[in-house]
Amino acid sequence: MKSTSNLDVLTEALRRLPGVGPKSAQRMAFHLLQHDRDGAALLGRALLQAVEHVRHCTLCNTFTETAVCETCLDPERDPSLLCVVETPADQLMIEQTLTFKGLYFVLMGRLSPLDGIGPKDIHLEKLIARATDGVVSEVVLATNFTNEGEATAHYISEMLKARGLQVSRLARGVPVGGELEYVDAGTIARAMLDRRST
Amino acid sequence: MKSTSNLDVLTEALRRLPGVGPKSAQRMAFHLLQHDRDGAALLGRALLQAVEHVRHCTLCNTFTETAVCETCLDPERDPSLLCVVETPADQLMIEQTLTFKGLYFVLMGRLSPLDGIGPKDIHLEKLIARATDGVVSEVVLATNFTNEGEATAHYISEMLKARGLQVSRLARGVPVGGELEYVDAGTIARAMLDRRST
Ligand SMILES: [Zn+2]
Ligand SMILES: [Zn+2]
Repeated sequence: MKSTSNLDVLTEALRRLPGVGPKSAQRMAFHLLQHDRDGAALLGRALLQAVEHVRHCTLCNTFTETAVCETCLDPERDPSLLCVVETPADQLMIEQTLTFKGLYFVLMGRLSPLDGIGPKDIHLEKLIARATDGVVSEVVLATNFTNEGEATAHYISEMLKARGLQVSRLARGVPVGGELEYVDAGTIARAMLDRRST
Repeated sequence: MKSTSNLDVLTEALRRLPGVGPKSAQRMAFHLLQHDRDGAALLGRALLQAVEHVRHCTLCNTFTETAVCETCLDPERDPSLLCVVETPADQLMIEQTLTFKGLYFVLMGRLSPLDGIGPKDIHLEKLIARATDGVVSEVVLATNFTNEGEATAHYISEMLKARGLQVSRLARGVPVGGELEYVDAGTIARAMLDRRST
């Protein structure tokens, strides 16, 4: 076990993954080197490729490999409707309900003062610029129905209403305390159809 | 979320890690790209470096970056004692007890017929060659005290005794069903001192 500096470096690096402690990191390193070196090489290359090529859409802020993502470029979508979500996963969930044909803005987070996550960290200046382009007429807030998601929705609502925009929120069909990612598409569909002005 | 092929590739590749399902993989990918690109690049390089440089010690089978590991090359160790463990982590635990000054053989696994893991997968031919070098006089079996670890110890014990070697097993100070990695060093120390002939 001495001299294995590359193994030690790998074990330490695996701890950069969220939710991975020292024991898990060690097990992952052993597993990859003992049973899945192809997987290790594949993951290594995937990480470097993603870091090099994945960036943020200049319009909606989601992950993309081009300046503007495919969704934002889709001419079939209604540019007067803008749906604000916390993550790309949440956007995907809403897309699956087939109830929304507008465009998106992805915060890539939520306000969380206790964790030091403020308005700048969730790109609210970029959202204001996007929502006040003169084309958007309604902003649908689809942040999670957790405390932080609700506070984020409230903050954004006040901010955008002060700029004369119509703002709505998904109806409370989504269970209180629930995270969109884990709610069934039917519930989200109803909540989208029942969205209310705020 | 479309066009992000490198993100999809990364998410899929993260599932090669043991215990990581589709949701965890997605969260890990988002986290790295959003909050820790340095960590992602570090991990990517560490994986490729480890795959390229880490191999197995020709004598004890553990991970090493040289033909023979430092432990096997240590002239202070008693070459007549050979301790058989399942993993490098188990070896490290035994080292920490300071009760064993011999050499090791690391199986990198355990017999598990239900998972299709047989004698060849845990390098038993390499172990026989190692244990019958004419210098080793006692083999201490320190596989886990799980069903599979016990079966592995029994199998190895019969195999080595048939070749005239003295074989011992860590005393049952280790709780039945316990895994060495999670047992305190004091218990392992007692079990090492109380090891019994099999
Ligand atoms: Zn976009
Ligand atoms: Zn060695």
